Amino acid sequence: MNGEASGKNIIMVGAGLVGSLLSIYLQKRGNQVTLVEKRPDMRLAGSIGGRSINLALSNRGWRALKETGVAAQVEKLAIPMKGRMMHDPEGKLTFQPYGKEGQAIFSVSRAGLNQLLMNEAEQCGVNIYFNQDCESINFEETIVFAKNNKNKTTQAFKGDVIIGTDGAFSVVRETIMKSGRFNYSQSYIDHGYKELSIPPTKATAFALEPNALHIWPRGRFMLIALPNADRSFTCTLFLPFEGEDSFSALKSEKAIMDFFRSTFPDALPLIPALLDDYFRNPTSSLVTVKCYPWVKGNTLILGDASHAIVPFYGQGMNSGFEDCYLLNKMIDTHRGNWKEILARFQAVRKPDTDAIADLAIQNFLEMRDKVADENFLLRKRIEGRLNELYPQKWIPLYSMVTFSDIGYARAMAVGKRQEAIMDEVMTKENIRDTWQQLDFDEIVQKLTTD
Amino acid sequence: MNGEASGKNIIMVGAGLVGSLLSIYLQKRGNQVTLVEKRPDMRLAGSIGGRSINLALSNRGWRALKETGVAAQVEKLAIPMKGRMMHDPEGKLTFQPYGKEGQAIFSVSRAGLNQLLMNEAEQCGVNIYFNQDCESINFEETIVFAKNNKNKTTQAFKGDVIIGTDGAFSVVRETIMKSGRFNYSQSYIDHGYKELSIPPTKATAFALEPNALHIWPRGRFMLIALPNADRSFTCTLFLPFEGEDSFSALKSEKAIMDFFRSTFPDALPLIPALLDDYFRNPTSSLVTVKCYPWVKGNTLILGDASHAIVPFYGQGMNSGFEDCYLLNKMIDTHRGNWKEILARFQAVRKPDTDAIADLAIQNFLEMRDKVADENFLLRKRIEGRLNELYPQKWIPLYSMVTFSDIGYARAMAVGKRQEAIMDEVMTKENIRDTWQQLDFDEIVQKLTTD
Repeated sequence: MNGEASGKNIIMVGAGLVGSLLSIYLQKRGNQVTLVEKRPDMRLAGSIGGRSINLALSNRGWRALKETGVAAQVEKLAIPMKGRMMHDPEGKLTFQPYGKEGQAIFSVSRAGLNQLLMNEAEQCGVNIYFNQDCESINFEETIVFAKNNKNKTTQAFKGDVIIGTDGAFSVVRETIMKSGRFNYSQSYIDHGYKELSIPPTKATAFALEPNALHIWPRGRFMLIALPNADRSFTCTLFLPFEGEDSFSALKSEKAIMDFFRSTFPDALPLIPALLDDYFRNPTSSLVTVKCYPWVKGNTLILGDASHAIVPFYGQGMNSGFEDCYLLNKMIDTHRGNWKEILARFQAVRKPDTDAIADLAIQNFLEMRDKVADENFLLRKRIEGRLNELYPQKWIPLYSMVTFSDIGYARAMAVGKRQEAIMDEVMTKENIRDTWQQLDFDEIVQKLTTD
Repeated sequence: MNGEASGKNIIMVGAGLVGSLLSIYLQKRGNQVTLVEKRPDMRLAGSIGGRSINLALSNRGWRALKETGVAAQVEKLAIPMKGRMMHDPEGKLTFQPYGKEGQAIFSVSRAGLNQLLMNEAEQCGVNIYFNQDCESINFEETIVFAKNNKNKTTQAFKGDVIIGTDGAFSVVRETIMKSGRFNYSQSYIDHGYKELSIPPTKATAFALEPNALHIWPRGRFMLIALPNADRSFTCTLFLPFEGEDSFSALKSEKAIMDFFRSTFPDALPLIPALLDDYFRNPTSSLVTVKCYPWVKGNTLILGDASHAIVPFYGQGMNSGFEDCYLLNKMIDTHRGNWKEILARFQAVRKPDTDAIADLAIQNFLEMRDKVADENFLLRKRIEGRLNELYPQKWIPLYSMVTFSDIGYARAMAVGKRQEAIMDEVMTKENIRDTWQQLDFDEIVQKLTTD
């Protein structure tokens, strides 16, 4: 197992986004990767793409895509979103940039990106086996036993290393969990989500500004819309499962129409198939999973399998892609000694994925609630100015997470410090009118001196 | 389901301590209780009692035993422990009372108590079915399907209410978990435990002071001993699984003997079968389980099934017995409306069981480490004086948990406040020599005024 950074036989479970990307990384290093995937091949006609909250690619994701040489192809699928477009209850719009001029996050379709990565993986020599249910793992012998869910035969895949990239409901993780002491938590938020669709206009144009992530923030709930390459938007309605204004309260056609008419009046005419979408599409739940250790023998879990998060910071896929980037770096550093690589990877990465899990929950509150608040918008304006004046010293939390590769844990810590400083700034008398005269230098000093 | 506080058909899964006690409560109210239990009848010859960290019965447990009319029988099995007897590395003893004169916790054997409760349950009319593996639950129809693990036949137990009292690895909880959104965490500490035994002396006397819980605190690990009715002591060795001075380091006879000789020199001659015990007895792990909701339809989980905790506050069984006491109270309050009873029970009880879970982890640090610390002992002495002078106003945290029925969450909150006040007191110059001259009235005032 030691001493060689290539030439290993690597068995991976799960050919989703993270699994497909990691297989490219590992295969390109000269290992032989075998990917076993539960679902049928999504590239064949008749397959369904699975979940599809649109994905927002940002810096950490792009970095890994560039390194594996697929970024140029992905760019063709991606639509830049330069900021949040807020829709108030009267339909009035407010635009709030995500970062500086030229910075954007990118809307991509999960299915499109996954297919692209699978194609690339196969082209570099990865073997993908579809319709394979992982049934058990022999951790000592590094063997995955998988049953073909079509012909019901069980096959043994033996390797030097096993990597589980099989998502939030990971079977590899479950198998590790059953084998002994394992810390685990799953935590659902009170909200679920449902997909709706905004088609292109009759003139085959985007029905809304395409280079923005649209949000209808309404306190306890919200609607969002992300652009697609075909000029449609995918909308996601986030609602509590129970209570007033909840999925369980909106059961009848009349209740749904009334709710949209009074709450999202400008969105309603853009969603012609609202009732069809609403009744046909499932109501999905949102879970945060944390666990440890991620390693058992020569088996590792990675991506959503070890740290599933809610989607509100747009970092689920990005953090998974960053896992791949970091693991690849560590193979270099430890010259192919997988015992060291695995031990080091989980120790270094765990605090960062815990941090982004917590930040994602916090951002849910921000998106559905605070983005409509004037004080919040003023804070953002002041922070924007601070960043303009001191681009190296004051980077807003959102930018650290989205447009940099600062570790998530460090970003969260700095963000807390910034928040405390901004809390103080916001108590200044008449801040709304006088903020331009603030002593910005003094404010920035506090970040380093306190 | 509503309107009657008796006459219900209640199916319970798990005839351990909590299940057996609750069945007595419910049967005595005029319900028909059916208890299905996975293990064989432990009262028959040849059965093994299962886990046996000795139990420490305290106020909350006694209250429920009294109410169900079994306290007098239990008293015959119980040995009072009036305080901690600390053994330092030279074998020097220090005694630290748990509470005031006349207060004690009581050592009882798990198996003895469980058998007593089962006998009592059957005497009041509870039907206990042994060797029954709960296989699945129909939550809508309130049916437990259990397979007899001897003759392999599956039986359906249909009731009005199902209660899972099947412990830390509850199958009822697992079944609820699989059925949808469910918050769950399991968290293992780095330490495991192993049982050892101190037999009576040749003169058939206790080898150590019987009315104490003996502790050999050694920082990263500890040994404890609790008295048994047969004049033996059950010892429990708590050690990390990995690292220096760990279960994985102590593998050879020589390593074990050397370790005991240098670390527990006064205990070593009292444990004649040390090596036999060590190699024969399993190394068990220690887990905290938190979850929510505890209710699905008319099914409830209770005791370790919904809140398993580590044993270091002696509150695992006591909190489970308190669950029974509180549930019984709520049946009165809500006049047998089980929908209300279940909803209210979990809402009221959850914060308290979260608190005792956290307190139990904290007390582990205290037992293995701080009890040997002089400052800690001085704090305890000052707190003891405060309690003597103001018995209603200053009740030490340990006493609130152990000798009162104050809610655990409230006890924890008051305890934190006391800790902050005592931190300040302990910074006083020369506190070791001058503590008797402290203004105790002023200290107590702080509890209510800040």
